[in-house]
Amino acid sequence: MKIGYPLILINFKAYSEASGKRGLQLAKVAEKVSKETGITIAVAPQLTDLAFIASQVEIPVFSQHVDDVPPGSYTGHVTLEAVKDAGAVGTMVNHSERRVRADQVDVIVKRARSLGLTTVVCTNTPEVTAAMAALGPDMVAIEPPELIGTGIPVSKAKPEVVTSSVELVKKVNPNVKVLCGAGITVGEDVAAALRLGTVGVLLASGVVKAKDWEKAILDLISPIIKK
Amino acid sequence: MKIGYPLILINFKAYSEASGKRGLQLAKVAEKVSKETGITIAVAPQLTDLAFIASQVEIPVFSQHVDDVPPGSYTGHVTLEAVKDAGAVGTMVNHSERRVRADQVDVIVKRARSLGLTTVVCTNTPEVTAAMAALGPDMVAIEPPELIGTGIPVSKAKPEVVTSSVELVKKVNPNVKVLCGAGITVGEDVAAALRLGTVGVLLASGVVKAKDWEKAILDLISPIIKK
Amino acid sequence: MKIGYPLILINFKAYSEASGKRGLQLAKVAEKVSKETGITIAVAPQLTDLAFIASQVEIPVFSQHVDDVPPGSYTGHVTLEAVKDAGAVGTMVNHSERRVRADQVDVIVKRARSLGLTTVVCTNTPEVTAAMAALGPDMVAIEPPELIGTGIPVSKAKPEVVTSSVELVKKVNPNVKVLCGAGITVGEDVAAALRLGTVGVLLASGVVKAKDWEKAILDLISPIIKK
Amino acid sequence: MKIGYPLILINFKAYSEASGKRGLQLAKVAEKVSKETGITIAVAPQLTDLAFIASQVEIPVFSQHVDDVPPGSYTGHVTLEAVKDAGAVGTMVNHSERRVRADQVDVIVKRARSLGLTTVVCTNTPEVTAAMAALGPDMVAIEPPELIGTGIPVSKAKPEVVTSSVELVKKVNPNVKVLCGAGITVGEDVAAALRLGTVGVLLASGVVKAKDWEKAILDLISPIIKK
Repeated sequence: MKIGYPLILINFKAYSEASGKRGLQLAKVAEKVSKETGITIAVAPQLTDLAFIASQVEIPVFSQHVDDVPPGSYTGHVTLEAVKDAGAVGTMVNHSERRVRADQVDVIVKRARSLGLTTVVCTNTPEVTAAMAALGPDMVAIEPPELIGTGIPVSKAKPEVVTSSVELVKKVNPNVKVLCGAGITVGEDVAAALRLGTVGVLLASGVVKAKDWEKAILDLISPIIKK
Repeated sequence: MKIGYPLILINFKAYSEASGKRGLQLAKVAEKVSKETGITIAVAPQLTDLAFIASQVEIPVFSQHVDDVPPGSYTGHVTLEAVKDAGAVGTMVNHSERRVRADQVDVIVKRARSLGLTTVVCTNTPEVTAAMAALGPDMVAIEPPELIGTGIPVSKAKPEVVTSSVELVKKVNPNVKVLCGAGITVGEDVAAALRLGTVGVLLASGVVKAKDWEKAILDLISPIIKK
Repeated sequence: MKIGYPLILINFKAYSEASGKRGLQLAKVAEKVSKETGITIAVAPQLTDLAFIASQVEIPVFSQHVDDVPPGSYTGHVTLEAVKDAGAVGTMVNHSERRVRADQVDVIVKRARSLGLTTVVCTNTPEVTAAMAALGPDMVAIEPPELIGTGIPVSKAKPEVVTSSVELVKKVNPNVKVLCGAGITVGEDVAAALRLGTVGVLLASGVVKAKDWEKAILDLISPIIKK
Repeated sequence: MKIGYPLILINFKAYSEASGKRGLQLAKVAEKVSKETGITIAVAPQLTDLAFIASQVEIPVFSQHVDDVPPGSYTGHVTLEAVKDAGAVGTMVNHSERRVRADQVDVIVKRARSLGLTTVVCTNTPEVTAAMAALGPDMVAIEPPELIGTGIPVSKAKPEVVTSSVELVKKVNPNVKVLCGAGITVGEDVAAALRLGTVGVLLASGVVKAKDWEKAILDLISPIIKK
């Protein structure tokens, strides 16, 4: 499954609204909108739902987290191989709510590449974004933690954090794509993110906690469809 | 789904032999043997396969790990609610390969009880077993880490660790059941474990890495069937 | 150096008011009051000041934290041996701001005993207090985290947490002494703590952030002197 | 106190040979050799000995580790302010035996700069070295963990790891100096390290576990004195 851009990546977090069968329903809605509009909408379900959901939808599915261990005697760990066996196309890692160490990101990025999995490394400042880009993941996702879940979009509140990140990444490793996140809720936020040089957005509550998922996703991607 | 005793709990760990669809196959084999013999055989699949497998078998399914956070903004965490939504009956926690802190076990045990989930808290010494029993989980599972994966059964190599654990738990909290694990491979090990006062065993490689899963499980439970 | 009871243990935390030379001054004030009144006042300086302060005062000095590793190739770790070499009499461990796992407390308590060091294991609920008592430390210190630093004393706000802890410890391991902490500021709080069955208190901001350290400590111990 | 180059940084780790008063003796030997030869020899004592040793020697003293928290209610943590109050000139961080997360290194580097403290960020691969350089510390120290403590010098066994690191750092952030470590024992290793483009070495057992500390340090720096 190929990942197209612009990319909308919906993180289900540990929200009860998107857990178990409700998570599958949300993934199905994302799939429907994606098929109807041609926009790539990817989902990152709860870890426990990964294979359950990835086996039932045809949009890119990401793990929310992965550990740096190979298959083996590692109870309670999530391996890249398990992510792949589950049917996911890749994984997020280092989210502000589940940070790992740089040496672990290094191992994960290298092993993911050899397994054909896509990596999205989350970051919080332009400097950390540059640092993570130096490790060569497919994407970095800059998200100022203080804006996460606020509904105040990073693309408006801190555009300079996004543009500095984009510039530093270009300098350090121009092959790495940049997403941004935190506070993304409406189409305007997505349009602003793209104008700032990103290839898409990472968001969670803006969709997951919306009363009407389909409407929320359609609103999000409206500026991209119009283009 | 009620958990019967003696209990055989098969931990799939992060073994590639039991990942994704192969994990489902192993769970199906366990289900078949359980139905044919009446012995309770439970499985703990990889986290990413939890809902996938729990939705397709009718034996007790446990999570290998759970975090102490409630549903919400917790990317990459496993909540008790997600474990329940996935269709599992309970969760292991504090395995030697994924230890958590005592205050986290306390939160998990209390919240699991209110959600109707069964908790199996792993331990390594008689003292830690007593400590975890003081937190009131449904079961503790004593596993000397140095024997895990060796094929040398704790019930033979260190029977005194098991009997001390059983005695201390009786004193501290007699409602807590005791499992033992580490090195369990054949039926004789299970019989020995029960003689030492446990209600069952926790094992992994002894089954997961066996060439013939059905034969391995049947061999394991042969002493219990005979009874 | 023998530890007498009732015990007043002052935790310097990472407060700037008690860092470096200011930490030494506070320890000297505690020493002065202790010598003049005969009450045991112990201090837990910042890790970086441990040997510096322990080498210059004659009151019991505790480490704020210790790791479960032996001497060796463990950069940035605090060993029990280093704590002893620094001249401290023992160590706190598992403070709510620096929790460790139960198996680590088990290792630390056993090794501390063989080294002749005194252990104070911090806890947050009666159940965790019972659990830690099962590991056999010299003392447990129950501190509801939500009261820490508030000035609202646990002995008044949640006396039942203290009395339940004392009762459970008696049942699980009567050799373990109980301290309480959180919100302790004045002598009245200490008196209440002793009435509830503890052998003393653990406190921090109540003394460290006081304008006049000597006055604050004297006020704290006034009910014990009167006795 | 100014740090001169080439720099020899001796990490005492948690070795019993360099704990407490023995740590002070080793620091005194390093100071003597440094004064006699003019070569900068810095020491990183055990955390518990930091103020004790820094207050008694006139060579640069580093902390082995620091946490990313400011002064305050953080029991058992090491703050940059405590490191400074202890009399140290800076801190190592992210040693392979005590890794922290990239966002924590980011916070530490920025706060250390504002406090006038020197930062040495340890790394394990060229990619991680580049990543840490992007955060702008004063120095990075590349140490392949598999060579640590072996006596097989990185400068001989894996010179390409050192040269790649030096090159990547030049590209990402040329202001950052590069040290190398792992297996460094004799003067030849130091000479090789400098030829590969580093400004010095980080070592531990090569000196700490030597029977004659003075002889070991003199041997180490012999190629630099000759120059």
